[in-house]
Amino acid sequence: MKEIKAGLLGFGTIGTGVIKVIQQNADVIAQRLGARVVLAAVADLDITSDRGVTLEDGVLTSDADAVLTGADIDIVIELIGGYEPARSFVIKALRHGKHVVTANKALMALHGQELLQVAAENNVSILFEAAVGGGIPVLAAIRENLGGNNFSAISGILNGTCNYILTRMSENGEDFATVLADAQKLGYAEADPTFDIEGIDTAHKLSLLISMCFGSWVDFEDIYIEGITQVTAQDIEYARQFNYQIKLLAIGKREGDVIEARVHPTMIPASYQLADVRGVLNAVRMQGDFVGPVMLTGSGAGMDATASAVLGDVISLARTKLTESAVVTPPLGYQHDELTKLTVRKIEDVCSDYYLRIMVEDRPGVLARIAAIIGDLDISIRSMIQPQRQQGGHVPIVLMTHTAKESNVRLAVERINQLDIVKEPSLFIRIENSLA
Amino acid sequence: MKEIKAGLLGFGTIGTGVIKVIQQNADVIAQRLGARVVLAAVADLDITSDRGVTLEDGVLTSDADAVLTGADIDIVIELIGGYEPARSFVIKALRHGKHVVTANKALMALHGQELLQVAAENNVSILFEAAVGGGIPVLAAIRENLGGNNFSAISGILNGTCNYILTRMSENGEDFATVLADAQKLGYAEADPTFDIEGIDTAHKLSLLISMCFGSWVDFEDIYIEGITQVTAQDIEYARQFNYQIKLLAIGKREGDVIEARVHPTMIPASYQLADVRGVLNAVRMQGDFVGPVMLTGSGAGMDATASAVLGDVISLARTKLTESAVVTPPLGYQHDELTKLTVRKIEDVCSDYYLRIMVEDRPGVLARIAAIIGDLDISIRSMIQPQRQQGGHVPIVLMTHTAKESNVRLAVERINQLDIVKEPSLFIRIENSLA
Repeated sequence: MKEIKAGLLGFGTIGTGVIKVIQQNADVIAQRLGARVVLAAVADLDITSDRGVTLEDGVLTSDADAVLTGADIDIVIELIGGYEPARSFVIKALRHGKHVVTANKALMALHGQELLQVAAENNVSILFEAAVGGGIPVLAAIRENLGGNNFSAISGILNGTCNYILTRMSENGEDFATVLADAQKLGYAEADPTFDIEGIDTAHKLSLLISMCFGSWVDFEDIYIEGITQVTAQDIEYARQFNYQIKLLAIGKREGDVIEARVHPTMIPASYQLADVRGVLNAVRMQGDFVGPVMLTGSGAGMDATASAVLGDVISLARTKLTESAVVTPPLGYQHDELTKLTVRKIEDVCSDYYLRIMVEDRPGVLARIAAIIGDLDISIRSMIQPQRQQGGHVPIVLMTHTAKESNVRLAVERINQLDIVKEPSLFIRIENSLA
Repeated sequence: MKEIKAGLLGFGTIGTGVIKVIQQNADVIAQRLGARVVLAAVADLDITSDRGVTLEDGVLTSDADAVLTGADIDIVIELIGGYEPARSFVIKALRHGKHVVTANKALMALHGQELLQVAAENNVSILFEAAVGGGIPVLAAIRENLGGNNFSAISGILNGTCNYILTRMSENGEDFATVLADAQKLGYAEADPTFDIEGIDTAHKLSLLISMCFGSWVDFEDIYIEGITQVTAQDIEYARQFNYQIKLLAIGKREGDVIEARVHPTMIPASYQLADVRGVLNAVRMQGDFVGPVMLTGSGAGMDATASAVLGDVISLARTKLTESAVVTPPLGYQHDELTKLTVRKIEDVCSDYYLRIMVEDRPGVLARIAAIIGDLDISIRSMIQPQRQQGGHVPIVLMTHTAKESNVRLAVERINQLDIVKEPSLFIRIENSLA
């Protein structure tokens, strides 16, 4: 039987998972491919630790070039993460005519455009299914099966850490810090959780989904990013009273040549399918003009699910190699020279409904002063609750607005915060009602 | 720009949808393919009716051969439905070196093995994404992205008509006949709804999912099929009291070389994601050994969603054609000569938990007699409710069992039905607890 030789860069958790799939499921993969996937080289600086998998003699090496330029390597799997040396390694592999599979969302979000260019110049491909939604087969679905559609919107819950935290805050009323500490103990959050809880990881993934859906690279710095650290269990409870849930949502929308690209805590109606996505699960929802809404749900992270996605890409590239065909499907689904540059709408120009939580002194006339500021800025109030009243203390006023322009809402909040009756910065959360 | 010439057989509702996508989204499809998809011929016996789309002169013909054997046709899209002449037409097209795309689940379920054989012999492909789950990109996901996995289970809500009926029965307590009549008025059910409500359409789709997941054709007659006509609004209400929902589920499971392939009303815990799939939506859930559970949801039928799936396949085959490569991905994901024949477990040998509803005379000692029959057959009762008591009339006894063998349950029901205190045939519904 023919062989496809894979080389692996980075023998960490995901790398171990990939080796496990290749070893355990060698037969079924061979039945699908008509060839065996053989791990010809695994490169890591640490060549002594026991990861619980056994490699054939001579496979493990500390020399990255054995993988990147090895004459017999067909496909390079990059799992070292981070920007460098991952970027240089991938470029080297592509220049040596190797197909590349990577799970590195940060690398692809920041340097994807360059890497795809190098791949195209060298008639090879770079696939990165594992970079978005872990095991969920979303990128290939957009690239190929949904390719007959123009997409108007994509949205997703793309970070298991955040969704786990928000789910527990929602279900048990626990506060952010407590749940985060627990998530760290359980291994659902990193020791330094910044990338996750500040929304950066979600934004990396959104940038790739946007490229795929809209055929346009988005500059990472054009994505509006806001994490979940400001959301309190009280906000989640107030949201529930309005029949909403709060999720960290990645949102991509397209109207003509303008797109929106934003990551922020978002209130969605409890009836939405996305509202039912609990715990560490991930989900992606796409809105195509013919297919309508499609939603994919599954494990967004973890050794095994990520390894499954990596193998999916390996299988795709192995098929190309085995039929000796040119790159059949370009990595983004669009022809390389057909990628366009769409304009990202500034967050200030976004129109949305808003939730506002304002902590005020509990005395007469307060609401009138706030309402005046809001009204002056052309924002109309849809509903209001004053959850508790306590003589003399601070009480929240919780408002939901009709659709308003973000710049006006920001100005309103700024002015409200300057009132002497307002004692702490007010919070606003965007509401998404357009994904029914 | 290069062109890919498509020929369409069957200018009905779906055909009209396909033409709409090709016309409306010509630009985005061209950006993805690097070639324009051109409708070179559309064949239908009716060449006069207005379907609301305009074809170029000379494209519409009543001569099927213009599509099947036309020298310039690259891809044939079969949308006439049914077994014949669809089967003969597809074979003819394949023999003439055309790739084929079909939405015909009945044809593929009954004759797929033969058609794939002909395709393989002629070095062309036949794809049928639209046959399962409408616009949901499930087949390609299994074939490619999830190809690193061994699957242990697939389950799905694959018939929008049944799910619509069960959802309304569940949400409004309406009875089957009323909702069916309404569904017919709304166009959610055919004038003759047999294929849908008796589970046959679902079984067609299940057979294709099983082939794809397990690499084994299943003989259609080996699939156990039971429709939803016996389920009453009361059963749905009792299920709810146990915190379950009733869905028409397609279930495929694999244990070694034995598979289960069955379609029947199924009680699933209300906490399952599948339980949230309401109305005409479809969903497919796959359990892979590495990816874990993945669920895909979307429109399972309708002109536009089905057309989206057809175009996905057209794009895949056009890419093959454009790169002049051999068939890169075999239609089932498995190499043609690696397909195996797994044994389907007889329904009598299936083990499951069961719901039993027995209508009895309301007098003392009844439960003891029923419990004795059940106990004698090695079936143990997990819980029981006697929902209403009315002096002298008939009352239901509703039981849930622990895991039992179906043959024993059938025998128990048979014996229970023979008791003089039982006045109408008892109903049993299988419970699925293994998809958490």
